[in-house]
Amino acid sequence: MDLKHFEKILGYHFQTQHLLKEALTHKSTKKGVHNERLEFLGDAVLDLIIGEFLYKKFPNSKEGELSKMRASMVNEKAFAKVARHLNIGDYIFISNSEEQNNGRQKDSILSNAFEAVIGAIYLESGLEVVRTLVHHLLNAVHPNIDLNSLFYDYKTALQELTQARFSETPEYIVLDSSGPDHNKNFLIGVKIQGREFARANGKSKKEAQQTCAKIALETLKA
Amino acid sequence: MDLKHFEKILGYHFQTQHLLKEALTHKSTKKGVHNERLEFLGDAVLDLIIGEFLYKKFPNSKEGELSKMRASMVNEKAFAKVARHLNIGDYIFISNSEEQNNGRQKDSILSNAFEAVIGAIYLESGLEVVRTLVHHLLNAVHPNIDLNSLFYDYKTALQELTQARFSETPEYIVLDSSGPDHNKNFLIGVKIQGREFARANGKSKKEAQQTCAKIALETLKA
Repeated sequence: MDLKHFEKILGYHFQTQHLLKEALTHKSTKKGVHNERLEFLGDAVLDLIIGEFLYKKFPNSKEGELSKMRASMVNEKAFAKVARHLNIGDYIFISNSEEQNNGRQKDSILSNAFEAVIGAIYLESGLEVVRTLVHHLLNAVHPNIDLNSLFYDYKTALQELTQARFSETPEYIVLDSSGPDHNKNFLIGVKIQGREFARANGKSKKEAQQTCAKIALETLKA
Repeated sequence: MDLKHFEKILGYHFQTQHLLKEALTHKSTKKGVHNERLEFLGDAVLDLIIGEFLYKKFPNSKEGELSKMRASMVNEKAFAKVARHLNIGDYIFISNSEEQNNGRQKDSILSNAFEAVIGAIYLESGLEVVRTLVHHLLNAVHPNIDLNSLFYDYKTALQELTQARFSETPEYIVLDSSGPDHNKNFLIGVKIQGREFARANGKSKKEAQQTCAKIALETLKA
C-alpha cells in the first residue's frame, strides 16, 4: 500500500507520516494506536469549517436553518461520499476479519477515516490549510450544485412554518406529468389553507415539491 | 452602557464595533439583527478549541473520554459561568420584558452571548487569537484546578463499567479519617464484587472516592 498515491489524490503531503498512518488505522487492527482520537479532533474541525462556510454563504439564514444545513453535510453518509471520492477504502489499515466483513466499503469506517485525516492535517498545518482543502473537496464531490438546493430540505422547513402559523401541513398536488419514463416531467402545486402558493416543474415529484416549497417559503417569509 | 468596559474585562478590542453589538444583542430586542448566528459560529469555535485543548492535554485518553470531558465543559452551565466572570449580563441588549424576567441572570442568555462574542472575535481575528483568549478565560474561571479532576467524573465512569460487566455498583468504604476539621484527611477504599480494587487518600470523601474510582478503572481496563 503506497500512501504517496493517497496523498496525491488528497492533494496534501504529510510531513509526519505516522500521523497519516494513524488517521488511516481502524481500531480493528488492535495495534494500540488507531484513528479514533484524530477522528474526535477532525469532527470538530469539519463542524467549524462547514459551519463557517454556511454562515458566510447564507448571510440571511437563521441559526436554525444553518444548523439544519450543516447537519445534512456533517454526517456519516455525506463524509463517506467524500471518503470514496478520495479512495480512502483502498488505503485504510483494518483487521483481516473486518476486511472480510467488507470493512473497506462501510460508511462508518470510511467517514471516520476521512474525519481523522482532516484532524491530522489540522494538527500538522493548522486551520487555514485544512479549510482550503475541505472547500476544494466539497466542490469536487458536488460540482456545479448550489449548496442551497442540495443540502436544505425546504419541504420540512415549509411544514414547520405552516404548522406554527396555520396549524396545518402543506398539500402537494400533481397538476401534470409528461414525457417517457426515463425523462419524466412533473408539474406540482402546493396548497396551504386551500390556496395555491406555488407551482413548479421537476424531473421527479420530490424535486418539483422541493422547488414548490422553496417558492412558498419565500412568499410566506416576505 | 459603555462597551469599552466590557472589552477591558474581555481583554480584546473589536475593530468592528457592530460585531460586538450584534454578539451582545438578544433576540428579544426584536431589532432584526441579534446574536443567534454568531452563537452558531462561536459554538463550533469553542467545540474545536476545547476539543483540541483536551486532545493535547490528555494524550492517553480515548475518544469516548475526550467527548465526555468536552461535554462537561461545552454546555450552558459551564459557559454561563464564564459569562458571569466577564459580567456579560451587565452589557447585553435585551427587551424590557426580558429584563423584568431576570434575563440578565439567565444561564441560557448569558451562555449564548458568550458563544456569540467568541464567534465575533473568531470572525474578526481568526482562530489563533480567539484560542489564546479562550485558554486564558478557562484558566481564570478555574484557577489551580487540574482539568482532569474537574471535568471527568471517574465515579460515574466506574459505575457504568461495573454495571455493564458485573451488574453491580461499586461500594466506597471510609477506612480512616484524621486531622482537624479544616484539614481533614480521608482514606477510602472501593470494593467491587466483594474485592477491594483500590484505596486512596483525599481532603474530602468525594476527592478520595474519585481517586479510588480512577485507579479501579485503570485496573479493570488493563
